[in-house]
Amino acid sequence: MVNQVLAAVAWAPKQTQLREFLRPEVPQDGGVLQVETVGVCGTDVANYATVREPRILGHHVVGFVSGLGAEASRRWGLHEGDRVAMEEYIPCGQCKECRRGRYRACPFTDSRRGGLRYGNTPIDVPPALWGGFAEYLYLHPNAVLHRMPAHVPSVEAAMTLPIANGFEWMDVECGVRFGQTVVIQGPGQQGLACLLAAKSLGASVMVVGRQSSRHRLELARQLGADAIVNVTHEDLSQKVLDFTGGDLADVVIDVTSGGSDPVKQSFDIVRRGGTVALAAYKHQTIPAWDVDQVVAKSVTVKGLRGHSHRSVEMAIDCIADGRFPIHLLNSHHFSLQDTDLALRTAGGEGEPNPLLVAVSPGLAQVKKGRHSNPSS
Amino acid sequence: MVNQVLAAVAWAPKQTQLREFLRPEVPQDGGVLQVETVGVCGTDVANYATVREPRILGHHVVGFVSGLGAEASRRWGLHEGDRVAMEEYIPCGQCKECRRGRYRACPFTDSRRGGLRYGNTPIDVPPALWGGFAEYLYLHPNAVLHRMPAHVPSVEAAMTLPIANGFEWMDVECGVRFGQTVVIQGPGQQGLACLLAAKSLGASVMVVGRQSSRHRLELARQLGADAIVNVTHEDLSQKVLDFTGGDLADVVIDVTSGGSDPVKQSFDIVRRGGTVALAAYKHQTIPAWDVDQVVAKSVTVKGLRGHSHRSVEMAIDCIADGRFPIHLLNSHHFSLQDTDLALRTAGGEGEPNPLLVAVSPGLAQVKKGRHSNPSS
Amino acid sequence: MVNQVLAAVAWAPKQTQLREFLRPEVPQDGGVLQVETVGVCGTDVANYATVREPRILGHHVVGFVSGLGAEASRRWGLHEGDRVAMEEYIPCGQCKECRRGRYRACPFTDSRRGGLRYGNTPIDVPPALWGGFAEYLYLHPNAVLHRMPAHVPSVEAAMTLPIANGFEWMDVECGVRFGQTVVIQGPGQQGLACLLAAKSLGASVMVVGRQSSRHRLELARQLGADAIVNVTHEDLSQKVLDFTGGDLADVVIDVTSGGSDPVKQSFDIVRRGGTVALAAYKHQTIPAWDVDQVVAKSVTVKGLRGHSHRSVEMAIDCIADGRFPIHLLNSHHFSLQDTDLALRTAGGEGEPNPLLVAVSPGLAQVKKGRHSNPSS
Amino acid sequence: MVNQVLAAVAWAPKQTQLREFLRPEVPQDGGVLQVETVGVCGTDVANYATVREPRILGHHVVGFVSGLGAEASRRWGLHEGDRVAMEEYIPCGQCKECRRGRYRACPFTDSRRGGLRYGNTPIDVPPALWGGFAEYLYLHPNAVLHRMPAHVPSVEAAMTLPIANGFEWMDVECGVRFGQTVVIQGPGQQGLACLLAAKSLGASVMVVGRQSSRHRLELARQLGADAIVNVTHEDLSQKVLDFTGGDLADVVIDVTSGGSDPVKQSFDIVRRGGTVALAAYKHQTIPAWDVDQVVAKSVTVKGLRGHSHRSVEMAIDCIADGRFPIHLLNSHHFSLQDTDLALRTAGGEGEPNPLLVAVSPGLAQVKKGRHSNPSS
Repeated sequence: MVNQVLAAVAWAPKQTQLREFLRPEVPQDGGVLQVETVGVCGTDVANYATVREPRILGHHVVGFVSGLGAEASRRWGLHEGDRVAMEEYIPCGQCKECRRGRYRACPFTDSRRGGLRYGNTPIDVPPALWGGFAEYLYLHPNAVLHRMPAHVPSVEAAMTLPIANGFEWMDVECGVRFGQTVVIQGPGQQGLACLLAAKSLGASVMVVGRQSSRHRLELARQLGADAIVNVTHEDLSQKVLDFTGGDLADVVIDVTSGGSDPVKQSFDIVRRGGTVALAAYKHQTIPAWDVDQVVAKSVTVKGLRGHSHRSVEMAIDCIADGRFPIHLLNSHHFSLQDTDLALRTAGGEGEPNPLLVAVSPGLAQVKKGRHSNPSS
Repeated sequence: MVNQVLAAVAWAPKQTQLREFLRPEVPQDGGVLQVETVGVCGTDVANYATVREPRILGHHVVGFVSGLGAEASRRWGLHEGDRVAMEEYIPCGQCKECRRGRYRACPFTDSRRGGLRYGNTPIDVPPALWGGFAEYLYLHPNAVLHRMPAHVPSVEAAMTLPIANGFEWMDVECGVRFGQTVVIQGPGQQGLACLLAAKSLGASVMVVGRQSSRHRLELARQLGADAIVNVTHEDLSQKVLDFTGGDLADVVIDVTSGGSDPVKQSFDIVRRGGTVALAAYKHQTIPAWDVDQVVAKSVTVKGLRGHSHRSVEMAIDCIADGRFPIHLLNSHHFSLQDTDLALRTAGGEGEPNPLLVAVSPGLAQVKKGRHSNPSS
Repeated sequence: MVNQVLAAVAWAPKQTQLREFLRPEVPQDGGVLQVETVGVCGTDVANYATVREPRILGHHVVGFVSGLGAEASRRWGLHEGDRVAMEEYIPCGQCKECRRGRYRACPFTDSRRGGLRYGNTPIDVPPALWGGFAEYLYLHPNAVLHRMPAHVPSVEAAMTLPIANGFEWMDVECGVRFGQTVVIQGPGQQGLACLLAAKSLGASVMVVGRQSSRHRLELARQLGADAIVNVTHEDLSQKVLDFTGGDLADVVIDVTSGGSDPVKQSFDIVRRGGTVALAAYKHQTIPAWDVDQVVAKSVTVKGLRGHSHRSVEMAIDCIADGRFPIHLLNSHHFSLQDTDLALRTAGGEGEPNPLLVAVSPGLAQVKKGRHSNPSS
Repeated sequence: MVNQVLAAVAWAPKQTQLREFLRPEVPQDGGVLQVETVGVCGTDVANYATVREPRILGHHVVGFVSGLGAEASRRWGLHEGDRVAMEEYIPCGQCKECRRGRYRACPFTDSRRGGLRYGNTPIDVPPALWGGFAEYLYLHPNAVLHRMPAHVPSVEAAMTLPIANGFEWMDVECGVRFGQTVVIQGPGQQGLACLLAAKSLGASVMVVGRQSSRHRLELARQLGADAIVNVTHEDLSQKVLDFTGGDLADVVIDVTSGGSDPVKQSFDIVRRGGTVALAAYKHQTIPAWDVDQVVAKSVTVKGLRGHSHRSVEMAIDCIADGRFPIHLLNSHHFSLQDTDLALRTAGGEGEPNPLLVAVSPGLAQVKKGRHSNPSS
């Protein structure tokens, strides 16, 4: 039994430090997870840049149950050695939101209100091990775990949460169905996750980006996009008319982070009665929103965040069935010692051309650069 | 058999003239309706002010089937003498929209594209009698008719379409259910129709207006509103907090015609995960739309127009069951000879304090002013 | 602070005995409830007749929070003195069913698999006070509580769970909507609860029973049924044709406990494309099920059990708004000392003409017989 | 312009005869279709065996618009030369069912009530050409047509309607979604269509049959079934447990025509809260239906028939995208001269091993036997 746990603690802006912690006791209703791989999320990058109270970042976690209380085993239906993907939420299970299956809205998951959340809880909250950039992680009694099949490569397994967002937004929220047309504005992590979900659901999908993301557009094509549009050089409206046979799109989702133009364009390219989904913060207002267009076209607009139990299970099914070359989404794979480089790379200040960056505490040696199939 | 049909033709801006027409032949697959009562719609008022090609206005029509072809009788399941409420649409029945039950989106109902529509078709399209301000009206083979029970007073029966909008928007589109809280911004014809629908569905309803519409707010209370707010004197946000026990509203609908403030406020007073419905043209853009608020609160926004077969049936059920004092919605009742005055009154340039204004071609004598129960 | 708690323990078939227990300690994450009133459920009657291990029956409980841990207060959003209605389930909050909002399917609520449930847990499971026939009851950390407004009479508040079943079945499961027609076979506790729910949702409702339940049919009429049918003397099929204008019923629910005839009739009187709901065990098979009729009429059949968080809230809204004379459902009201009589009465072996029977531990004196408004 | 039209008239039980008809006039609101290929439906086989009044059978029709009235062109959005698949229904477009998008329930499509239907209307109803086993077919003003892409082989295009049933039942009615498990009992035409639909929707699918249909089970595997079960040799319940990891199936559909055992087994192998779909007539009752099992497991049962506008479009998308080797479903392809042999083969009395049998009036020469890719 290991008693010392190594973890990368973010202790000041853009700085992490490897520290040793005691392996937590295993409570009756909780456990300990051996971290296999953790994916770097955009939230990690933001927290890395602004951290004040020291904490272990990382919440796209896959690993093996290493210690487990009897009560937790009974509730979770798990045993030591089982492989699981985790959600970042630690919901109370007893409030109205939890009772209705909307645990991502549980007030106890809101760190601004004193709630706990994996990857963003200070180390002075015992037992400190609340983040994925560590050899082991504490399984709180309210942790949300999902079985992960053995055959899935660990870097793909660590993509469960972003892909779950794709299923939540495309299936659960927007009701994308077989035969529909979907336009995804923004070929980043979330846009490509939406692509995987929409293709799994049987839709025809167009992915839209700018010249600066042309490599990601190409990746979109490899992942199954039926059409890609480089808006720097191509006319989006005309492309959508061609793609949909003149009908315009059933669903348009905007996951671009900057600027209000994609929002406005979304309303132009959606069909009468269609849905415009908004899933990224703009940090600015839309200067002149044509609300009459929303009425005239009977558009539904949906503001979207996060995932649910069901969409996480769908993501795991999608990853596990091997239909899509999901490994292409992983651009970099680092050891725990290189957590700093991993976070800088994901933030565009480290290795070039990042997409999904992963860290595996068990990885013997630093690997740098792009790997076509990093888990092999 | 009457052979001459008297009708009020709108032939120039803000002018109508009584003219005589030949009673139409009854085709195998169509018929003729004896108009009992026609309600004045805001669209009529707008068309009255701008008309170029002469036409008979009026499309909130209830009447009696006066002539009926054998094929129409079979399709519609109707006989001569039956009382019906009409929809304004004349959908083709064969296009994709019609085949999917969305006939209000049928391209043939769009008068800008050459489609026919009751109350807005020139008299030079034979057989001329396309509007409700007439003794008789032509029943096109594609007319959409609904049985109207005999016991319903005619001015109430003529409110079927606006009340159908209320059911379409509250039930079919926004899914308002028993126990939910609904805030309606704007106590006009459409707002009060939404009130009737939301109360029928079992919701708790707050109606919001300004000092200038305080009489309508009072009327809202008489029709069953659980709360009313005069925003000229009261703080809407605080009132909504009180009304919902701090939860904010499940559904907010804005049916005010002017200004962007109600749109912005709608997003402030809707709960996380709630719905903001927009059902009135603003003829202006929203200057600084806080799109991040839509994402942060996971709001659904719905642009809404018109009614469906189902919502019209719901409206008739609502009117017929007598639970609400719907007659209070009728403010004026005129004879065919006073169609001009009816249209001016509905437009705020005739008799004072208009709400729903009705014209009954069979009414012997001009009645002016407000009637508490005009159909008695 | 009371330290001794009086409770009626069912210790042998059809026998209860008042015993004293220690008031439980209040854990950080749990509490103690002062029982105000408990309604007698059919399950209580069945358990009363067959009990082996001693236990405190009663799970339709309303009461006041008497002791509360800090953690429980935070999770439940409650304070000492708050009035609440309880559910019978004690779900784990962490399994897949709980995480998806379907906690009534949580394996930990299944007493056959070792789960706990209010009103059916032996007294040798500490702290013994798991039932409503007691002055105080233990609030397990996983208890499901709902606020109950102060103005609701306690015997009506104790009807929350059966009425919640009505909303679960009519609204959540069968999607009953304004203007639909519903036929309820069986005017017992569950049938009348379905009546309240269906009327709240705006449906037209027919309640069907036999001569032996004619008093309950009359009660159905007082509660708002649009039609009642005594099948001993009247032709159900003809009555349904008349009631629905020849269309047959949108939804038929069978809550009769005995015999297969009502099941067969349900398929005859439902319209094409309608729903047949089955919500009562028959303890016998249907001898010749015409499955081709199900296909020919495109019927949906739904097997139904229990309630959800949402339907309990709807029930409380329905009880609290005072639209229906719900007090008429209460037939008998006893003190804790008369728990035996209450259980026998509910089982048809005590006082005559039982419907909903309630016990209030605080009731000073035995009240017998039928009370038109027992809570006054 | 051809003036003589050759058609195979079914004039007595199990007998067809080639006759000549006049090419119909093209009405303003209708047209004429040049039949490319017609698939043989089970209904055709049944009608072939029992026909009294002579008629042209065949309603799984794909062809080219050969003549078209101006009004029909406008309504249908089609021009001469366009390729279309037809539905069998000729709905009125004006009744309540049509107005709600449920045109397959339109009373005018019911031939028992005097309605017209393609493939089952006597030749003495002018203009006689109501069936697909003919060079040309009359396009009634109320015909329901769907565009068919040029690249689709004609025998695959002629499978549109059975595959549409699969989408109607799996998607529209049962709500099959990505990641769900579906068990299909019966590997015939309808079962395999359900397989294609369920796979398109992203489900995991098990197909179940007997030893006598082992070739069809093998075909199911080639079409993408994740598991097949030969119930003559294998234990279905155990196989379903293995397939679903112990959870049982989300959806079970029974499309076997004979016997009640598959119905009973469906309830055993469906999960709690799952759906059992019934889509084939049994012509017998179920001897002892365990209705308590339906309640205890909270099962939804759905009786299913026919397709809708949406499911036909989905079927065309599925056929056109080429993901599945749909040509494998076609077992025989005949000329118009061999219509008799085609009908006997489809009924199991002609060529061996029939599955989907097609007739192409334009096929120069009789082709017999099984073709792996008959359209090439």
